[in-house]
Amino acid sequence: MKTYRKTNFPVDEVRRYLEPGPIVLVSSAWKGKTNIMTMGWHMIMGFSPSLFGCYIWDQNHSFEMIRRSRQCVINVPTSDMLKTVIGIGNCSGDKVDKFARFGLTPVTATTVKAPLIQECYANFECRLFDASQVRKHSLFIWEVAKAHVAMSPKYPETVHYRGEGVFMISGRNISRAGQLKPQNL
Amino acid sequence: MKTYRKTNFPVDEVRRYLEPGPIVLVSSAWKGKTNIMTMGWHMIMGFSPSLFGCYIWDQNHSFEMIRRSRQCVINVPTSDMLKTVIGIGNCSGDKVDKFARFGLTPVTATTVKAPLIQECYANFECRLFDASQVRKHSLFIWEVAKAHVAMSPKYPETVHYRGEGVFMISGRNISRAGQLKPQNL
Repeated sequence: MKTYRKTNFPVDEVRRYLEPGPIVLVSSAWKGKTNIMTMGWHMIMGFSPSLFGCYIWDQNHSFEMIRRSRQCVINVPTSDMLKTVIGIGNCSGDKVDKFARFGLTPVTATTVKAPLIQECYANFECRLFDASQVRKHSLFIWEVAKAHVAMSPKYPETVHYRGEGVFMISGRNISRAGQLKPQNL
Repeated sequence: MKTYRKTNFPVDEVRRYLEPGPIVLVSSAWKGKTNIMTMGWHMIMGFSPSLFGCYIWDQNHSFEMIRRSRQCVINVPTSDMLKTVIGIGNCSGDKVDKFARFGLTPVTATTVKAPLIQECYANFECRLFDASQVRKHSLFIWEVAKAHVAMSPKYPETVHYRGEGVFMISGRNISRAGQLKPQNL
């Protein structure tokens, strides 16, 4: 797997990597154990504070770890990690140490106990901002407290899920900055 | 612009087109007027009922039309419509009839008063499922009541937004169905 050199990144700009809709890996820690899950149901919900919503099914082993710890890290894997992304989704953290099984490196985060996944392009440390929709809609609303992003390439090649085993790989990036009104950038 | 031949599509499978995270056009109707907005902050929230959440800023002209009518249509444009997608985001429905300005064709929907946009690849008729987070988070939680999807191509080439005027165009589609556990498909 690739190793990325990362730098601190402004939390109010994480939409650059999340708004296009990639599959992410959610890492968590609770009572001395860590876990990772594959997740595709998420959205940006605000710039400042930097808000991010995601759906975590209550049957996932990660659900209780994340609900109780009120923290997680959102990690953005690149397309070369597709096999790992699928493998993580195929097994449960109640039986498997996913960092060990998939040869991933846990890195200590700055503001949360959940570990960063070193092999991912970007890592966003999240603290629970609003728990009110967790029971009703399995919706966690996070504040991104710290962001670590690879210094290159400028844009990662990400994996997006269509269901039924079909993945879309992100394609070319084009700038139309001159055509947008400033307030819409 | 392209014209697509569309067919009725199962509402519990709309994730195929929305989960990858494309920019969508939201059409609405209220008191005899229609409007369209460009929107990128959304997520799938359930299969059955078919739930879809989206963030609509309360400063958008569409906000009150959608909040009051409790209906909208989510339209999926393809990359050939990028100029239109940007143009719709650059002007406000309080001054412009966007269907007329952008040469788009409103088509009568089956279950809602908001019009479908004929030129889009897919149209999802939505009824408000949960309004409780509208004031707090600008979050509308919709039930997809009816779905119309183009019969070909199988997957649309969609536009995804990174902010700062940069768009990502959806790339290749690959199947790994044989590698996923059935419950994860």
